[in-house]
Amino acid sequence: MTYCLGVAVDAGLVLASDSRTNAGIDYVTSYSKLHLFTPAPDRLFVVLSAGNLATTQEILNRVRRDLARAEQGLMQAATLVSVDYLFEAADYLGRVSLAVQDQHGPALAQHGISAQATLILGGQIAGQPPGLFMIYPQGNYFAASPETPYLQIGENKYGKPVLDRLARSEMSLEDAARLCLVSLDATARSNVTVGPPFELALYPRDALALSHRLKLEPEAPLLAAASQSWNVGLQRAFDGLPRFDWEMAQGGLA
Amino acid sequence: MTYCLGVAVDAGLVLASDSRTNAGIDYVTSYSKLHLFTPAPDRLFVVLSAGNLATTQEILNRVRRDLARAEQGLMQAATLVSVDYLFEAADYLGRVSLAVQDQHGPALAQHGISAQATLILGGQIAGQPPGLFMIYPQGNYFAASPETPYLQIGENKYGKPVLDRLARSEMSLEDAARLCLVSLDATARSNVTVGPPFELALYPRDALALSHRLKLEPEAPLLAAASQSWNVGLQRAFDGLPRFDWEMAQGGLA
Repeated sequence: MTYCLGVAVDAGLVLASDSRTNAGIDYVTSYSKLHLFTPAPDRLFVVLSAGNLATTQEILNRVRRDLARAEQGLMQAATLVSVDYLFEAADYLGRVSLAVQDQHGPALAQHGISAQATLILGGQIAGQPPGLFMIYPQGNYFAASPETPYLQIGENKYGKPVLDRLARSEMSLEDAARLCLVSLDATARSNVTVGPPFELALYPRDALALSHRLKLEPEAPLLAAASQSWNVGLQRAFDGLPRFDWEMAQGGLA
Repeated sequence: MTYCLGVAVDAGLVLASDSRTNAGIDYVTSYSKLHLFTPAPDRLFVVLSAGNLATTQEILNRVRRDLARAEQGLMQAATLVSVDYLFEAADYLGRVSLAVQDQHGPALAQHGISAQATLILGGQIAGQPPGLFMIYPQGNYFAASPETPYLQIGENKYGKPVLDRLARSEMSLEDAARLCLVSLDATARSNVTVGPPFELALYPRDALALSHRLKLEPEAPLLAAASQSWNVGLQRAFDGLPRFDWEMAQGGLA
């Protein structure tokens, strides 16, 4: 399983992912799911991937090959370096993803295995606002909005309640990154197929470069400190909940 | 959808449920999913139900009919009044559930509809400890343990992280009930097919009667106060999370 998420705030974008991959419960490995593309100084793309590992690797390989061919002047079709809008980059990734799935899907289906992959694309092209897109296995896509500033792929349920309560367009990039860590930590606690290293990319609006990129290993002090701090804070929030009326009648705290 | 949960603590049991039922997204209604049986002074059972509404209603109707027949001396087979152990009550409910599903399952399957129902049974028979059982649609069952003192049925993922962090066998019945409310509230926020009224039953060990039974309507002051208090506490926990090292270099708070 996998859990990746992106948060689009006024200050920019945060992209985050776990790194656990499993083929069955007895083959668990670690792969990065956060992929950075800076094919020209006027653009930056971060791609998060969930689903079939072979599919996602082949998507990334084809994207890199297309960029190499474009550099040699051999590409007529769209690539990450030639698109004019972020939605065109999402459209391009969706078409590459579909082509890979079309090639390998039928053979996999014979064994009951899905070739599907779902992607999140975050980034910016100079002169346009930054954006955050969800790209479905079918190749279609949509963007996050100020009303729902986050997107999730993979095991999305455990980490959603904190996003629903705390995600705001007005929060700082660092707060959005902390929120991603809390959401990742909640998911990793509840599902053993999601786990660290956790990767984080912070993109300040209009910078056209990441301000910070972190890979937090399981033993990273920040991870332990954040988890411990969150536990204590949650216990305190719990202890502060209102009492039932019969507890107050018995002299309990209000 | 549905979300029900039970927590078994040293002090007794708490059973909790939402009340939203939906047949498609355009037919949403409200049904109680928390059912109390006290067929004799030496025993108490609470049954929580998730799944096909017709199946769960017929299970409950058959259980009540069996009890009426037992009172008339017409039942040889096990009923809730004749079983000697709580696991036998779980076994009995599993068999009734299977019989109902066997009757209606084939006709439903022709329309791609599931007849399945999943139950949680909490209760006590005098002279034995209280217990909390999960009863699968297939009729088999298992009990909660001190290591994992809670059981969930229905939409279980959104409300699991708080249980994983806070559920303890040593917590009071009232704290366990508050934890159930938080878990229900998190689920209802993230999934519109789960919603109030929320029902709560508190069973103190060896009492053979509920100490409290609550039905919290959407506008219940306790529900609004708890949700508001939890939001504030969560925001405070979030604000207390450790800073990234570059924030500290910039004079941020540690």
